[in-house]
Amino acid sequence: MNYPTIPPIDKLAAQQARARQNSLTKPPGSLGRLEEISIQLAGMKSDPLPNVDRKAVIIMAADHGVALEGVSAFPAEVTPQMVMNFLSGGAAINVLARQAGASVTIVDIGVAADFDPALTGLWHRKVARGTSNMAKGPAMTRADAEKALACGMDVLADVAKEGLDLIATGEMGIGNTTPSSAIISVLTGLPVVKVTGRGTGLDDAGINRKIRVIENAIAVNRPDPKNALDVLSKVGGLEIAGLAGVMIAAASRRIPVVVDGFISSAAAMIAVGLVPDVRNYLLSGHQSVEIGHQAMLRHLGLTPLIDLDLRLGEGTGAVLAFHLIEAASRILREMATFAEAGVSDKG
Amino acid sequence: MNYPTIPPIDKLAAQQARARQNSLTKPPGSLGRLEEISIQLAGMKSDPLPNVDRKAVIIMAADHGVALEGVSAFPAEVTPQMVMNFLSGGAAINVLARQAGASVTIVDIGVAADFDPALTGLWHRKVARGTSNMAKGPAMTRADAEKALACGMDVLADVAKEGLDLIATGEMGIGNTTPSSAIISVLTGLPVVKVTGRGTGLDDAGINRKIRVIENAIAVNRPDPKNALDVLSKVGGLEIAGLAGVMIAAASRRIPVVVDGFISSAAAMIAVGLVPDVRNYLLSGHQSVEIGHQAMLRHLGLTPLIDLDLRLGEGTGAVLAFHLIEAASRILREMATFAEAGVSDKG
Repeated sequence: MNYPTIPPIDKLAAQQARARQNSLTKPPGSLGRLEEISIQLAGMKSDPLPNVDRKAVIIMAADHGVALEGVSAFPAEVTPQMVMNFLSGGAAINVLARQAGASVTIVDIGVAADFDPALTGLWHRKVARGTSNMAKGPAMTRADAEKALACGMDVLADVAKEGLDLIATGEMGIGNTTPSSAIISVLTGLPVVKVTGRGTGLDDAGINRKIRVIENAIAVNRPDPKNALDVLSKVGGLEIAGLAGVMIAAASRRIPVVVDGFISSAAAMIAVGLVPDVRNYLLSGHQSVEIGHQAMLRHLGLTPLIDLDLRLGEGTGAVLAFHLIEAASRILREMATFAEAGVSDKG
Repeated sequence: MNYPTIPPIDKLAAQQARARQNSLTKPPGSLGRLEEISIQLAGMKSDPLPNVDRKAVIIMAADHGVALEGVSAFPAEVTPQMVMNFLSGGAAINVLARQAGASVTIVDIGVAADFDPALTGLWHRKVARGTSNMAKGPAMTRADAEKALACGMDVLADVAKEGLDLIATGEMGIGNTTPSSAIISVLTGLPVVKVTGRGTGLDDAGINRKIRVIENAIAVNRPDPKNALDVLSKVGGLEIAGLAGVMIAAASRRIPVVVDGFISSAAAMIAVGLVPDVRNYLLSGHQSVEIGHQAMLRHLGLTPLIDLDLRLGEGTGAVLAFHLIEAASRILREMATFAEAGVSDKG
């Protein structure tokens, strides 16, 4: 499979943004990470005055064969039900995207239910009706993993056609913290118990079962930590593959990616495993309460923007962070300089 | 001086909001602090479906006699210069307020310079031309402290006349981290060195000088930690008094107050010292990098919403947090319930 080339960060644009930040009417550095983010955006977008006017969130929905093992507090039928909720605008991500002025794209990349092909609003890109049960064998074939990656790249390309300055990743898939924990355990070498949490609300018995299921899945499949495609196909998910594709395609177009929480970060680890330079185009929207997320962020070298004890997914933490990223851009673009405002600089 | 009555939090409205949060299409608690904030808003506003549509930031500007002691990296002339910058829309707070859809009210409560009385946009409410040098004696008389408190209450009342759902506190005053550190040291009993930072950018020699100046000011004035008005008048500032008045008046009207960083938190400590129930209407916008701010937040029992290494003031951290508070309100008001969306609840 061929991946697109990732352009290098534009250091000159970043330097110009930094110089401008230091000329604005505030003590240098006093806007902290807002200043740093504006400089990162400049480098990513190759624009010393980057804007993030056109924003979108892509939500990939898929099911997981491993849900049969009782690893989620919710039944699998919730995946298609929540897809319908997204389409009618009643989910948390719809509310936050409306507030942020972001478009919402809902993709059926692998839901284990049939939607009416005439259903409008939904992007019908099903690669398979859910994954196989990774506790018994590979979650999917290499071919399906590559199809799902390509699907993500295609969707991003389509969303970007009308112009796109900032993209958030979101997902829906009952059971999908389970492959995410498996991915992080394999790629970081951390024991499963250290990176496996309660997901949407497992009790103590449930979490112990989930840990055993993941340990088994890794033992059965023996994914190669040096081969992200092997890890993805054996213990991943279709929405995780799709989001990795979204990230690769966005980075190739200099579009900054705001990574949501636990599952999106697993996708980011896969994307960076496949195409390391994708890392340069990632921002972390928020710190999830799901244990293991901190280890993921350390692995990716990302610092989250928001820490509000969120653990919903759907892209909610990423879209919430849009406002802070837009604030960074607006500060850089709209503030007056000391010279323009006639304000005395530091004595 | 008479302070207004602060109404109790409406526990029934808060309970109704909590019940609704638990019926929305997400695992209960999965939106973390957004859920908690929506419940707090309901209790404060006595409305089970609170909105925060009408937002404002009030910026109180004043000078400090203690600036003569060399406690700031910037010259005192910057206070009136920045007031002009606020009026022309070029400062950070203007940019962030535009983004948030919040009005900006700039009040001259004690700038040591004369503005043209015909200058529009500025609220001309000068109580004094700056404070006296607290290193030599009281920063202001009790009468002036009460005038400044009353000014803040009046300004809030005027801003609220056309409807107000959420207020942020902001300030401008070269040297004003110095009285803020003095206030926190007196009210918490912590040593000055533990609560005194670099402000807008002091070097090591500057910070040592600032610590000695504050220690002297406390020794010379002997403010009574049990008497917030005594503390305010002896080692406070006019903008700090004004913001304390804003908070008291907002709480009396059930308007939630988003407290900005270090100086605003000093004002909050004074407001709560004068009228303890004001505490129930406060939210903390952000964690400042200024040392001592964490101790203030502990004293006030507040947890900040944002932590992005900001240290600018002006209300920037509070107005940035408006988006998160509005997100909390919108989630509560706009999300579909499990029943409405036909989504299966937890298995």
